[in-house]
Amino acid sequence: MYIAMNRFRVKTGSEPDFEAVWLNREVHITKEEGFVEFRLLRGPQHEDHTLYVSHTVWASEQHFVAWTKSQAFRDAHKDAGQNKPLYLGPPHFEGFAVIQTVTP
Amino acid sequence: MYIAMNRFRVKTGSEPDFEAVWLNREVHITKEEGFVEFRLLRGPQHEDHTLYVSHTVWASEQHFVAWTKSQAFRDAHKDAGQNKPLYLGPPHFEGFAVIQTVTP
Repeated sequence: MYIAMNRFRVKTGSEPDFEAVWLNREVHITKEEGFVEFRLLRGPQHEDHTLYVSHTVWASEQHFVAWTKSQAFRDAHKDAGQNKPLYLGPPHFEGFAVIQTVTP
Repeated sequence: MYIAMNRFRVKTGSEPDFEAVWLNREVHITKEEGFVEFRLLRGPQHEDHTLYVSHTVWASEQHFVAWTKSQAFRDAHKDAGQNKPLYLGPPHFEGFAVIQTVTP
């Protein structure tokens, strides 16, 4: 299991616009092999921004990498530049291997 | 849904010790009301440390807060100070509200 996260520093006041971009987009990723789950997370507020994290769970890192090389990935990100005014700087990517899972 | 994450900067070379602490601990959190899932995540390597994230999903922020005030929480963290030599600085907490979930 692998979790791909992108950290977005969204300018204070732009939070509703940022959330609308995500909530109103067409979602194609569900058809990808190895896709497990996507979540959009709203984190702490800071003086000039709110931290958001896009959080995608994949069956393996290999599935994630295959997706980043696909046409579906290019299609999903082709308009991302239009949202730059909402952010302080570019998103910061962090990929994680799941090394322990505990469930009830 | 609410996700509580703690970010640990584990000194290079201490990763096996850090993972052993987590993998060998007694787990009591599964009995807590509102507990959904715990995952330990290993993230990117940097020059002097590896980023790890403890990732706990709760039914709501209120359930998380109630747990932090419980005896079970105090018991789970009473020995945490012993692991300080493994880290660069204290863990950094970030709490997230889940604002969108997409599943296959």
